[in-house]
Amino acid sequence: MGSGIVSNLIKMGHTVTVWNRTAEKCDLFIQEGARLGRTPAEVVSTCDITFACVSDPKAAKDVLGPSGVLQGIRPGKCYVDMSTVDADTVTELAQVIVSRGGRFLEAPVSGNQQLSNDGMLVILAAGDRGLYEDCSSCFQAMGKTSFFLGEVGNAAKMMLIVNMVQGSFMATIAEGLTLAQVTGQSQQTLLDILNQGQLASIFLDQKCQNILQGNFKPDFYLKYIQKDLRLAIALGDSVNHPTPMAAAANEVYKRAKALDQSDNDMSAVYRAYIH
Amino acid sequence: MGSGIVSNLIKMGHTVTVWNRTAEKCDLFIQEGARLGRTPAEVVSTCDITFACVSDPKAAKDVLGPSGVLQGIRPGKCYVDMSTVDADTVTELAQVIVSRGGRFLEAPVSGNQQLSNDGMLVILAAGDRGLYEDCSSCFQAMGKTSFFLGEVGNAAKMMLIVNMVQGSFMATIAEGLTLAQVTGQSQQTLLDILNQGQLASIFLDQKCQNILQGNFKPDFYLKYIQKDLRLAIALGDSVNHPTPMAAAANEVYKRAKALDQSDNDMSAVYRAYIH
Amino acid sequence: MGSGIVSNLIKMGHTVTVWNRTAEKCDLFIQEGARLGRTPAEVVSTCDITFACVSDPKAAKDVLGPSGVLQGIRPGKCYVDMSTVDADTVTELAQVIVSRGGRFLEAPVSGNQQLSNDGMLVILAAGDRGLYEDCSSCFQAMGKTSFFLGEVGNAAKMMLIVNMVQGSFMATIAEGLTLAQVTGQSQQTLLDILNQGQLASIFLDQKCQNILQGNFKPDFYLKYIQKDLRLAIALGDSVNHPTPMAAAANEVYKRAKALDQSDNDMSAVYRAYIH
Amino acid sequence: MGSGIVSNLIKMGHTVTVWNRTAEKCDLFIQEGARLGRTPAEVVSTCDITFACVSDPKAAKDVLGPSGVLQGIRPGKCYVDMSTVDADTVTELAQVIVSRGGRFLEAPVSGNQQLSNDGMLVILAAGDRGLYEDCSSCFQAMGKTSFFLGEVGNAAKMMLIVNMVQGSFMATIAEGLTLAQVTGQSQQTLLDILNQGQLASIFLDQKCQNILQGNFKPDFYLKYIQKDLRLAIALGDSVNHPTPMAAAANEVYKRAKALDQSDNDMSAVYRAYIH
Repeated sequence: MGSGIVSNLIKMGHTVTVWNRTAEKCDLFIQEGARLGRTPAEVVSTCDITFACVSDPKAAKDVLGPSGVLQGIRPGKCYVDMSTVDADTVTELAQVIVSRGGRFLEAPVSGNQQLSNDGMLVILAAGDRGLYEDCSSCFQAMGKTSFFLGEVGNAAKMMLIVNMVQGSFMATIAEGLTLAQVTGQSQQTLLDILNQGQLASIFLDQKCQNILQGNFKPDFYLKYIQKDLRLAIALGDSVNHPTPMAAAANEVYKRAKALDQSDNDMSAVYRAYIH
Repeated sequence: MGSGIVSNLIKMGHTVTVWNRTAEKCDLFIQEGARLGRTPAEVVSTCDITFACVSDPKAAKDVLGPSGVLQGIRPGKCYVDMSTVDADTVTELAQVIVSRGGRFLEAPVSGNQQLSNDGMLVILAAGDRGLYEDCSSCFQAMGKTSFFLGEVGNAAKMMLIVNMVQGSFMATIAEGLTLAQVTGQSQQTLLDILNQGQLASIFLDQKCQNILQGNFKPDFYLKYIQKDLRLAIALGDSVNHPTPMAAAANEVYKRAKALDQSDNDMSAVYRAYIH
Repeated sequence: MGSGIVSNLIKMGHTVTVWNRTAEKCDLFIQEGARLGRTPAEVVSTCDITFACVSDPKAAKDVLGPSGVLQGIRPGKCYVDMSTVDADTVTELAQVIVSRGGRFLEAPVSGNQQLSNDGMLVILAAGDRGLYEDCSSCFQAMGKTSFFLGEVGNAAKMMLIVNMVQGSFMATIAEGLTLAQVTGQSQQTLLDILNQGQLASIFLDQKCQNILQGNFKPDFYLKYIQKDLRLAIALGDSVNHPTPMAAAANEVYKRAKALDQSDNDMSAVYRAYIH
Repeated sequence: MGSGIVSNLIKMGHTVTVWNRTAEKCDLFIQEGARLGRTPAEVVSTCDITFACVSDPKAAKDVLGPSGVLQGIRPGKCYVDMSTVDADTVTELAQVIVSRGGRFLEAPVSGNQQLSNDGMLVILAAGDRGLYEDCSSCFQAMGKTSFFLGEVGNAAKMMLIVNMVQGSFMATIAEGLTLAQVTGQSQQTLLDILNQGQLASIFLDQKCQNILQGNFKPDFYLKYIQKDLRLAIALGDSVNHPTPMAAAANEVYKRAKALDQSDNDMSAVYRAYIH
């Protein structure tokens, strides 16, 4: 979550309590006026609505217990998981929360660190419709748009598809830029040409700029887009739907990970093509 | 070439002579004021600068001879090949033209039928720099931008890379839309989400609209984007550069061709995912 | 397990108790002299060593509890899981068995129905070395060879790699046979040529024969080889090792599954190439 | 061609004249009793039947002219091209030879250097059936088996399919061995297991042995198997037949070529997986 979001929420009159395994990561939020919770359970006990955002399916389950979120869930408590995970995981989370009387909404977000700081994320929500509406002012603080997609699991699926498209396209961009280089063409000119055409997009421009500048500071971690590709492929697997582009992209990202690019931006997949 | 281009050229004061294997395809140009040449050789004999645009490497060579373009090439004659072919082919064409005293420019175009009609193509040129400058008013009639890329072959290479990126991305889009469908998600909502994010582009929107409407009227023939993927892979092959995304995309397009989608728009690659 | 194995075990003087969710599947074993257990727990209670073989990771966990295998595990009881699952699953099973005082061996088998009936399986074992030695006469009844691979998880990994190689090669064979057909070559002649060369193997010959005869009776279920490819890819994923051949094969098998080939032999991947 | 073949031919009573761009490569043949031709044309003029074997389509065309084979072709002269090329190339060669009254047979060989030395190649022939029969004693000297496949082009197609299967399987083997290594399994044990199973073949054993010994001395050049994969993919392309396994393999071989493995044995594709 970006600090701009916390600031927005507080301006709206909300009381915000924050927690992170690495406490220092909360400093900026506290400067903006948030309180620090000592445990996930304390955050849940203190707040009407708890928003969680962790890295992967395992972390999403781990934060619930044994001394975690579940301790604070009582009838009426609301839990909004904004992590990008698979539909099975989020369905399992929902069942546990609801079985204790809680209300559950999944709300993964599309966007990057910069958009998060600016409160310009796109939010995909599914699950408890009433809770979605209760969150509307919060979501406005966070994002430029939100979508309600129906039953729990739909937001997870949709987010994986969005990120699959993004991850595959990123690999394609890297493939194009490297092919330009090894055939003696100017990468800058390739970008200029693409920017003049119908493919022009903020994503294409920013990622190419990153690569041209050799700047792989993480905006969207490479290890997370690879995780999303893996989960999207598994989603296709579960319905016997071939995803050859995602499968090819996933292999390229794995090579990038083997080259120590996990904690760089997804655009560092470029390095899988030059080594 | 779109009729708008011919109209523009004539307004600029140029005399335009046209030829096509299928004479009827010239009717619209003639209505705009162009003259009809009886053979390629006659066009070259009549005009200072001849612009050619054919479908593939074989056609680009065939149009030169034996009773073709070469018959009309004399010292000073200018020949501009706007086809998308490989660098070897265009280098061969250039050598033949130049060996007879002619001047040669390759100038493949990026864009589709609509952009062609509107004179909004992006033109990639390489070869004879003086000829490029002589063509500047013509290129302005055709395109919104042109790039001069140096020695003959560079424009072919760059165009193949641009089309490789486009073709791979198109397959990725189709993969995302079909995965949405088979997992019970709304394809329209997926498009809405993508249009809100940083991936948003004219290409993404138009191709998704085509698919949602089941409208595969050719804007960029599927068989030609597959040809370009094949040539781009061969380009990578010639310098030992892996292109796994393009290779995966190429296989999907081949399946689409086997499903009789060759003469539909490239977005009909969607059908390879649903059959 | 083939009936020949049960017969062998009884001849050796072992008492054999069998259980299957579908009781009729035990009929042949009972004719050979085996007793029928009413539940997995009863089998474990009755026997010194229990051999289990189920279809996938979920089934391997499910058979343990709540009214399953674990109820019968006491100090000294031996449990040998012969399923092909992933290393994480088998490690989890081992921990649960061992935490109750049991002894655990994983022992997945390489081979097919025919080899199983003939007691000619290759057995990969890992875990409790003493138990492996105690099983030696049983393994002799089942297989022509067994390997002890060290700590729990190693047999799972090795088996997935073996099946990955087999599954990818099967897809390659199908690709070759179909390419022969669509280019007007005799598939029988292709097989004759391959059988004369250094690639000649029982697997190649049998699978090609199956395809030429259109006989896809399951010897190794297509759905299981696809599961193994998926798990092998995940194994590579866990160590950032690209497996592009397995990834490509996996997509072909998914298409075959979408064409209702799950319960046919793995050679039915052929049908993914002709539809 | 191996020296054993020349020796066999001479023992049979044939007179053998040899030529190679690098004359020293003929030394061994001359020791066996062959005569040295000064040019391809001289070989053709001297001999009733000329056998040619070059590296790729371009070389196969180049050796014909201008001061090459064609100068010696007269009515009745026989020309047998044993190179592995594509069907278009061999059809073109046949037309040129036949148009001058010559007889043409394509006869690419499956096998490696060792088999060639031992006269144990598998020969695929197509074209002039009478010539095939005239060559029978020569083919017996070269190979353990020959197949006649009908009209010119069929042998080229069949050979590409055989080599496609071989090349894809080689990549799969390398993928399995490297996955074993990075997951802590013994590569030797993996080979032992595979050798016990139905996949066991001379090819599998020899290539794994090469890799385990780090011995990549060329038996079948990596650059040639990659060429054959490329041509087989193009063959599939020409009939709109997807070949995703070959496409994935081709990308791995390209990486191996970028790692300077072109002149090593095809088993050096292993190195593409470890760098």
